[in-house]
Amino acid sequence: MRDRPIGLSFFCYLYPVLLSNIIENKYNIMKTKVSLGIDIGGTNIAYGLIDKEGNCILNDSRPIASYNTPQEFIANLHQEIDQCLATHNVELIGVGAGAPNGNYFNGTIENAANLNWKGTIPFVELLEKEFHLPAFITNDAKAAALGEMIYGGAKGMKNFAVITLGTGLGSGIVINGELVYGHDGLAGELGHTIVKPNGRYCNCGRRGCLETFVSATGIKRTACELLAVENNPSKLRDIPYNEITAKKVYDAAQTGDPIALDAFRITGEVLGAALANLVAITSPEAIFLQGGVANAGEWLFKTTHEQMEANMLYLFKQKVKILRSSLPSNAAIYGAAALVWNELKEA
Amino acid sequence: MRDRPIGLSFFCYLYPVLLSNIIENKYNIMKTKVSLGIDIGGTNIAYGLIDKEGNCILNDSRPIASYNTPQEFIANLHQEIDQCLATHNVELIGVGAGAPNGNYFNGTIENAANLNWKGTIPFVELLEKEFHLPAFITNDAKAAALGEMIYGGAKGMKNFAVITLGTGLGSGIVINGELVYGHDGLAGELGHTIVKPNGRYCNCGRRGCLETFVSATGIKRTACELLAVENNPSKLRDIPYNEITAKKVYDAAQTGDPIALDAFRITGEVLGAALANLVAITSPEAIFLQGGVANAGEWLFKTTHEQMEANMLYLFKQKVKILRSSLPSNAAIYGAAALVWNELKEA
Repeated sequence: MRDRPIGLSFFCYLYPVLLSNIIENKYNIMKTKVSLGIDIGGTNIAYGLIDKEGNCILNDSRPIASYNTPQEFIANLHQEIDQCLATHNVELIGVGAGAPNGNYFNGTIENAANLNWKGTIPFVELLEKEFHLPAFITNDAKAAALGEMIYGGAKGMKNFAVITLGTGLGSGIVINGELVYGHDGLAGELGHTIVKPNGRYCNCGRRGCLETFVSATGIKRTACELLAVENNPSKLRDIPYNEITAKKVYDAAQTGDPIALDAFRITGEVLGAALANLVAITSPEAIFLQGGVANAGEWLFKTTHEQMEANMLYLFKQKVKILRSSLPSNAAIYGAAALVWNELKEA
Repeated sequence: MRDRPIGLSFFCYLYPVLLSNIIENKYNIMKTKVSLGIDIGGTNIAYGLIDKEGNCILNDSRPIASYNTPQEFIANLHQEIDQCLATHNVELIGVGAGAPNGNYFNGTIENAANLNWKGTIPFVELLEKEFHLPAFITNDAKAAALGEMIYGGAKGMKNFAVITLGTGLGSGIVINGELVYGHDGLAGELGHTIVKPNGRYCNCGRRGCLETFVSATGIKRTACELLAVENNPSKLRDIPYNEITAKKVYDAAQTGDPIALDAFRITGEVLGAALANLVAITSPEAIFLQGGVANAGEWLFKTTHEQMEANMLYLFKQKVKILRSSLPSNAAIYGAAALVWNELKEA
């Protein structure tokens, strides 16, 4: 062998280049895919990078008031995400957002009363323009249901509902493995089913909606009503209406305050009866309670479950589980991130 | 060419046989596919052979009391169907049945209170054994929804509900183009959602179910209650409770009887409010009313529509159509036949 053939010589010349490409490709293949989940609330915007197994790489939040426009927020977010991606071995595959009045069909946030960004915001369009990635939006309760399905206790379930209990009552319903959007994308307004005709005034302009009883505000209203109805002593009698909160009612219940305990009992009764009706219509395997009020311990859970069973059609008795969400406290980010995994099913 | 080659001679010999096969195959290809729909009621079993376009080739019924067992009925039915098939250029592709307590998941009729066949009947197994064809069963209201989807006004709709108004109130809900069965196959019990806590006693053992107000029996009960509440003169005051029927209330309403008119108004009010809640949960494009009571003309439709709108969350106002079923009077057979087309989608 006098001379090395040209081919081999050329290969030797190229070898380092090929090797680096191979390593880079291999490196790319090994990158963990993550989804960016954004939870838009009246006070804060929280966001996180989460992989399909639920590992959270970034978890942050900003006051929404810091940004005059959604464009400003999205540009800032993009910078922060890019910095994070540069230092982690991850690949961003899409962006999901959960927002009050988030319209999945239109990709918009529409006239959300509690946001300082007014009008109809083409949020998905803005996200896609900035990130050059697929983006999706839905309302917060629907995102919560997807979070439960992808990351939480509803994994593998085909029929379930998630009830979010916060300032209001939201619901996300999954049937045959698919989130129920309905004809116009707005299904799942369980909080605005009327449970007491001519009952309490609701922000929606009608009376007797479920969320006027079952929500943080509902619990406060029930407690105040009980102060008038009952004669029991209560710590709550020394607090003006405007300063009573569901948290204060909860704290009072913890000390055995009879009015506070009754307020939770009544809330559970109304919710249990409403869930029995929801079961008759949709026949879920389980109903998950999520959100601040849902964390109020056994006060709410026990009565809700008892009253759901008491009001249940015999066909469904002892069949439907009431479960606490198993997602972490930043569940809303998980829900928004889950939206991406649900849409890009092959990812 | 002295001799024809053997190959050709053999072909000439075979030619007539081949030709007859080709013709027969072609004839088979041209056979219209039909589905056998069976509607099992408390008094009669109705059945029909219907093609995918809704052409009805056979339409018959028998008193259920003529048959001691479901096996006896199915054997007789098979004979009649075979005779019919022999004289028509059609091919039977499957059998669908709609029955009270028809369980789609199990293929059974389970403890139907109004049938003289007791216990759990493996109806699908019996049908498949006799006909050697795919068979399916569901309850009557779900069959009605499929009938509306395949043959009726819901063609092309992905989200709608069918309410059947007869002795009771049944419902079949379609979401994302699929009938809602729920986790255990029993979803769609809108008639057993409680709309008046501690209200009228229901056959299900609870109180205040929607069907205690909105059904033939409900209208009769409302009329009787009004005889006590109001002082208006009414023909109905001369009829004993046991002899009042929804039909008699309807006839009285036609002559301007104020009690009868009020009975229909109240029925429409209760139904309208319940439908507004159903809309908030499922956001349908349309709601179809089907069955005997639904044919009671404008008395029911107008108030139901008005009250649905009056109780509707602003998001859904003026969006949801209330429609009369466009199926013929033997709609239940169409529904049962539609079950086959829906299952054998490629047929």
